[in-house]
Amino acid sequence: MPDPVPQTSTPERLSADELRVAWPILSAEDRAEGFLLLPRDDAEEFFIELDAHDQSTLLAAIPPYARRFWFRVLAPDDAADVLQEVGPEERAALLAFVDDISRNEISGLLAYAEDDAGGLMSPRFARVRPEATVDEAISYLRRQALSRLETIYYAYALDPHQRLQGVVSFRELFVAPPHKHVADVMRTDVISVPEDMDQEEVARLFAQRDLMALPVLDADGRMKGIVTADDIVDVVEEEATEDIQKLGGMEALDTPYLRTPFLEMVQKRGGWLAALFLGEMLTASAMGFYEHEIARAVVLALFIPLIISSGGNAGSQATTLVIRAMALGEVRPRDWWRVIRREFFSGLVLGIGLSAIGFFRIVVWEHLFHSYGPHYLLVAGTVAFSLIGVVTWGTLAGSMLPFLLRRLGFDPASASAPFVATLVDVSGLVIYFTVAQLVLSGTLL
Amino acid sequence: MPDPVPQTSTPERLSADELRVAWPILSAEDRAEGFLLLPRDDAEEFFIELDAHDQSTLLAAIPPYARRFWFRVLAPDDAADVLQEVGPEERAALLAFVDDISRNEISGLLAYAEDDAGGLMSPRFARVRPEATVDEAISYLRRQALSRLETIYYAYALDPHQRLQGVVSFRELFVAPPHKHVADVMRTDVISVPEDMDQEEVARLFAQRDLMALPVLDADGRMKGIVTADDIVDVVEEEATEDIQKLGGMEALDTPYLRTPFLEMVQKRGGWLAALFLGEMLTASAMGFYEHEIARAVVLALFIPLIISSGGNAGSQATTLVIRAMALGEVRPRDWWRVIRREFFSGLVLGIGLSAIGFFRIVVWEHLFHSYGPHYLLVAGTVAFSLIGVVTWGTLAGSMLPFLLRRLGFDPASASAPFVATLVDVSGLVIYFTVAQLVLSGTLL
Repeated sequence: MPDPVPQTSTPERLSADELRVAWPILSAEDRAEGFLLLPRDDAEEFFIELDAHDQSTLLAAIPPYARRFWFRVLAPDDAADVLQEVGPEERAALLAFVDDISRNEISGLLAYAEDDAGGLMSPRFARVRPEATVDEAISYLRRQALSRLETIYYAYALDPHQRLQGVVSFRELFVAPPHKHVADVMRTDVISVPEDMDQEEVARLFAQRDLMALPVLDADGRMKGIVTADDIVDVVEEEATEDIQKLGGMEALDTPYLRTPFLEMVQKRGGWLAALFLGEMLTASAMGFYEHEIARAVVLALFIPLIISSGGNAGSQATTLVIRAMALGEVRPRDWWRVIRREFFSGLVLGIGLSAIGFFRIVVWEHLFHSYGPHYLLVAGTVAFSLIGVVTWGTLAGSMLPFLLRRLGFDPASASAPFVATLVDVSGLVIYFTVAQLVLSGTLL
Repeated sequence: MPDPVPQTSTPERLSADELRVAWPILSAEDRAEGFLLLPRDDAEEFFIELDAHDQSTLLAAIPPYARRFWFRVLAPDDAADVLQEVGPEERAALLAFVDDISRNEISGLLAYAEDDAGGLMSPRFARVRPEATVDEAISYLRRQALSRLETIYYAYALDPHQRLQGVVSFRELFVAPPHKHVADVMRTDVISVPEDMDQEEVARLFAQRDLMALPVLDADGRMKGIVTADDIVDVVEEEATEDIQKLGGMEALDTPYLRTPFLEMVQKRGGWLAALFLGEMLTASAMGFYEHEIARAVVLALFIPLIISSGGNAGSQATTLVIRAMALGEVRPRDWWRVIRREFFSGLVLGIGLSAIGFFRIVVWEHLFHSYGPHYLLVAGTVAFSLIGVVTWGTLAGSMLPFLLRRLGFDPASASAPFVATLVDVSGLVIYFTVAQLVLSGTLL
């Protein structure tokens, strides 16, 4: 494509790889210009690899003749994703670019929620009749492949009502005697998913079964499309990102970090931060309740951050382990008793370990700096016993909270590290001052 | 397989699905028995879907004749994974079960680190000569498929030295005119990976490029195998699990939660917990430094947990966002300045929000309960200003720590939420008491 205007402020002609690297920092105009200057083959590869958001903004930034061409390059499932990104008028304008068959396919896909099996699937799969011979099937597929197939890894045998009868991999088809019928070589115990299955569940099935593709069926058993492993790689990453962000104590961002608008990001963080802050205010109330004890023995205040944060850290470990194991299906709701036993003993062992370190630290500091007064051994004992209690309790709370949230119908991943820490902070103070009253009564208190 | 012994204490004959559900709670013997009672076809599917660890323990629990049969069922990459799980004598015994060609393939794979591209790949890919015609290639592949192909999604054109010349998808091969040469229809700009590329990088390439398979080359450009998308689904899940566990403030477990031995798990958690505890001890020192201020104005102590935890929570959000964005390649080391700017303003806005809530809370409590004495407005001001400082600082620290760790050659994911919280706790105390001295000097202090 010749460029009539001498280039001054625009980027020089970049290779596809250079453009890929520069992409995140380029303006929409520079992106469009760099893209249009790519050789046709590179441009096609480049375009297909972009995510739906970048595809839609790029389409908006290039001239109409190019927009028509590039929208038609997209497979129907990708085209549907692009249409999800744009407004209704632009959607109609883009849909007008494609032929009737594709428009039907794309519109059909738009009806699905983006994170359902239906929203992931491609309607272009290889279909054969069970009555066909292997040879007929192969040569039919060879003609089908000409036009519009997403994958030819498996061929699906459908009855006249589009109901799935069996599946045969190309490999199996290739090795089968040519005169046999598809029905003789296909497997009939097909693993399939309903069109409204959540993508997280679909992904788990892929991970457990090591599959390359899964058929998607509607409520009547009619085959609507296939989901392929390459799409699932994206889903697994997306879902992990969501869980990680929730575990960090915020709402999941729906877009990459640097592309999320500032206000949206602050909102998604601010909501949880404020909620945690309100919860954490209970610590001020708890501390107020023990104000007299603190006034009489200021030394007690010194260890407050140490003790409550140890409980929070232990709880963070436990909740993280349990939430991830739940997401992977390694731990199921009915495993709660196994988990509680395991975590109780973990917490106890970890608490005893920390309490030993804490006791040692106070005794050593006293001998080095005389920091904690004549009753330093009692102070050390208070800290040590509190640590055992707080760490055990933090571990238990962190491991049980995801079960509880799930039971109440919430996302277990909301039991974020900060959430557990906040919970444990308040109860940790109560544990600490209760132990202090027991140990120090008559001496410091 | 007939069962000569009447069943008493062992499970009844289970279906494959029932066995799958019961699997985690069965003993090795019950697993072996349930497995051997499955119909042959179901058993094969069941066995192949097990992970390497379960495959190796199952092989150890079944009689030798069955062990021989089932080990030979495994593809070479899966067989290599099983051998990684067992001791040297058992490894030799298992290797003796397979034919020479397979033994060579499996031994070749054992040389690779498990988390390299080489450790993921299968040596059984479809190879063609560039000089062959499309028709020759198709019928050759049809014969190859008979024996030992992992996937027939792409065919790879190799020269006589096994160097990769190009790639052609089966779909492209099918649609090409039969008399053309493979060299005419293949693509020569093949995306490939070196055999020692880390699996995390390989996974990122799959996610970015939406591929079904990638060829793996050695240093001389010779093709050694292919990595397929179904294996990558597992890798992405594994890597996300590792990052999530590190973010929770512990070493990553290498095995599923419920299968990790108790002591190993306690060790992996205890190490970080102790390190964090040692760091958190600095809070006791910092508090000791301000002991006189606390003694003079006990009211100050009441807000310590609230203030430091707010900094920790804000830092946890920031570090989580940045670490995940780094893992996905959305944020690169050179983006640090964009991130710092963004996080500074996020922290400031969030801090101002929390400080408004905090100020309001203290004023309302004073009017309701007269909790904070005559200088309550100054106390509220101290808390409010400290919150702005602590939250802004926590956010900045949380976002920069992953960059710093990466720069120093550590894993950015070690900048876990608890790690950042510990860092911010100490500095948060300093900020709080400095603000207190400035605001309350002459009144409470």
